[in-house]
Amino acid sequence: MIGHGQDPTGGGRPTLGIVGATGAVGRVVLDVLPTRDTHWDGVRLAAGAEDVGAVRRVGGTDVSVEALTEDFFDGVDVAIFDIPPAIARDWVELAAARGVVAIDNSTVFRTDPDVPLVVPEVNPRRVADRPRGIIANPGATVMTMIDVLAVLHAGWELEDLVVTTLQAASGLGRAGMNRLHDELDVVHGDRDLGTRPGDVRRLIENELGESVFPAPLALNVVPFVGHHVGDGWTSEERKVRDETRKILDLPDLTVSATCIRVPVVSSHSVSLHATFGRRVKVEDARQALVEAPAVVVLDDPDEPEFPTPNDVVGADPRFVGRIRQAPDEPTTLDLFISGDNLRKGAALNMVQTAELVAQESARG
Amino acid sequence: MIGHGQDPTGGGRPTLGIVGATGAVGRVVLDVLPTRDTHWDGVRLAAGAEDVGAVRRVGGTDVSVEALTEDFFDGVDVAIFDIPPAIARDWVELAAARGVVAIDNSTVFRTDPDVPLVVPEVNPRRVADRPRGIIANPGATVMTMIDVLAVLHAGWELEDLVVTTLQAASGLGRAGMNRLHDELDVVHGDRDLGTRPGDVRRLIENELGESVFPAPLALNVVPFVGHHVGDGWTSEERKVRDETRKILDLPDLTVSATCIRVPVVSSHSVSLHATFGRRVKVEDARQALVEAPAVVVLDDPDEPEFPTPNDVVGADPRFVGRIRQAPDEPTTLDLFISGDNLRKGAALNMVQTAELVAQESARG
Repeated sequence: MIGHGQDPTGGGRPTLGIVGATGAVGRVVLDVLPTRDTHWDGVRLAAGAEDVGAVRRVGGTDVSVEALTEDFFDGVDVAIFDIPPAIARDWVELAAARGVVAIDNSTVFRTDPDVPLVVPEVNPRRVADRPRGIIANPGATVMTMIDVLAVLHAGWELEDLVVTTLQAASGLGRAGMNRLHDELDVVHGDRDLGTRPGDVRRLIENELGESVFPAPLALNVVPFVGHHVGDGWTSEERKVRDETRKILDLPDLTVSATCIRVPVVSSHSVSLHATFGRRVKVEDARQALVEAPAVVVLDDPDEPEFPTPNDVVGADPRFVGRIRQAPDEPTTLDLFISGDNLRKGAALNMVQTAELVAQESARG
Repeated sequence: MIGHGQDPTGGGRPTLGIVGATGAVGRVVLDVLPTRDTHWDGVRLAAGAEDVGAVRRVGGTDVSVEALTEDFFDGVDVAIFDIPPAIARDWVELAAARGVVAIDNSTVFRTDPDVPLVVPEVNPRRVADRPRGIIANPGATVMTMIDVLAVLHAGWELEDLVVTTLQAASGLGRAGMNRLHDELDVVHGDRDLGTRPGDVRRLIENELGESVFPAPLALNVVPFVGHHVGDGWTSEERKVRDETRKILDLPDLTVSATCIRVPVVSSHSVSLHATFGRRVKVEDARQALVEAPAVVVLDDPDEPEFPTPNDVVGADPRFVGRIRQAPDEPTTLDLFISGDNLRKGAALNMVQTAELVAQESARG
């Protein structure tokens, strides 16, 4: 049973609310919905004051964006939240208190033991185990690799993970994408740029103001994502460890992560070095990944064929390639994955999770 | 003793030849030379036919570029080579046969057991052990990390290394830098680009011809550097393993590398996960790196301070930061390094090695 005492088995389908409907992730939610089987009686949209009254096409219907107030949740059964962490806790808890099943994309609830962290292809049953009425959506970085890791863990028992991420500007939403474009505008046209110490930094800092990134991103890479959480680790690197452990139910998994922002508009990539409890052959791992429903293998070194972030923008699966093994490490695999961080990395996974809630309810 | 039976201890200093003087690396050799103590009686330049007769300023002197012929080596004692691998073997062997000490930046001789692979800060004595008269210069990717690894190995005994590289366009010389700029020109101005599947690839492939990179680099990353050498590994990844083992004299070191090209004009970066034979404390490792002559530590996560490739272009040292340890891995460190791949990564290291040869000779 979900929502307001409805009985969807009696014919009525639940209503979906999308909170933060006009943001980078919210827009992708609206793109994704018409591609899915219909689980919803209706869809309602909420956003910040500047977008209230705007009209968005959802499937075949025009829907007006409403203000985010307590009343918005009247008649909403399941709600997807993509709003800033500073306000996420209050609104998510308020919605849950009003009987809405709240699916939240902020970091606020991800490590709460009473909040499941759900990836439908990996741990779908956890969706029903939500004592607070809240389900958390994993971060896009973990989402880039978690399908692949789950498949390999099922076969060979994951024991140790070394991750270097290459994360797109859109990880910081529209603000991140706009900043990257602004920087690319500033550096454009000077073919000597990038060959003198800090020339890109000086130009960008002179021409543009404060940045959402801690260093220039155009013609550069920035090995610092998030904020410092102690002992030199960033919040993003800590998330990679904590969320991977929680989703795979491996509380003692050793995970080392280095998270790097790269001048890519959208789609995250990861370089993985994964060690298993048992010997794993490259061809067996590749076959298991080929058979996984949400994973596409792009891996032919003679072609050469491999995933790149731009090639996979807008696609639902994770794309994996460069599957290799060091000659003297029979329990270890190296691989590279790219995936759309706004789509499966955020919007699609929340829509899938909302559908699981709707299905669970429909089954009684 | 070097060269043509000269006796530099008698007052005459040796003559340095620079073969490939007008390429991306050759230019940096000419930039570097005036910054060094003088070891040379003269400097002579050779390049391909299109640049013969051009004049280059070397320190305070104008020097004409000569044709690369056998005669060029008459009177040259030590020669630095940065020419395409396809012609490197013949010219280097010819020079060595004429008594020139040949320092070569191609991959051709790096794994030859009779050719030392020299980094002056790490294994300077190997310079004298050159039965073929040839000394190889390591690849720029290994050079990015080898100083740091040597310092840490001296303290804690390196046992296992996991590397993800983020390599600049200039790794393919001027052709690489020009291609990146061409691609950036093509993608400039469309703020929706990078958000639709393969939109960058289509635009770049339509507007530009064949590329030196195996996929578009602008607004993208390309996880394939070099060519396939078997079992899914690229030549660049194989080099990282083979050259690291040879320079550190650790033939059994386990090394896994994933080499990625990023849209940075110049300066390579590496993300390292290094495991040692003994427990290592972050503060002790940091102190050892602070004391290393060719390494600069940029590492304050609260600032935050960290290296980025653009900030270190044109600088001689390697810049290391993000020095961390996973809570449950007391023998392991994670770190991030950026270094100029044309300067210490190629030109400076060859000049330093040539100076070692000159000094050895001067000592008799």
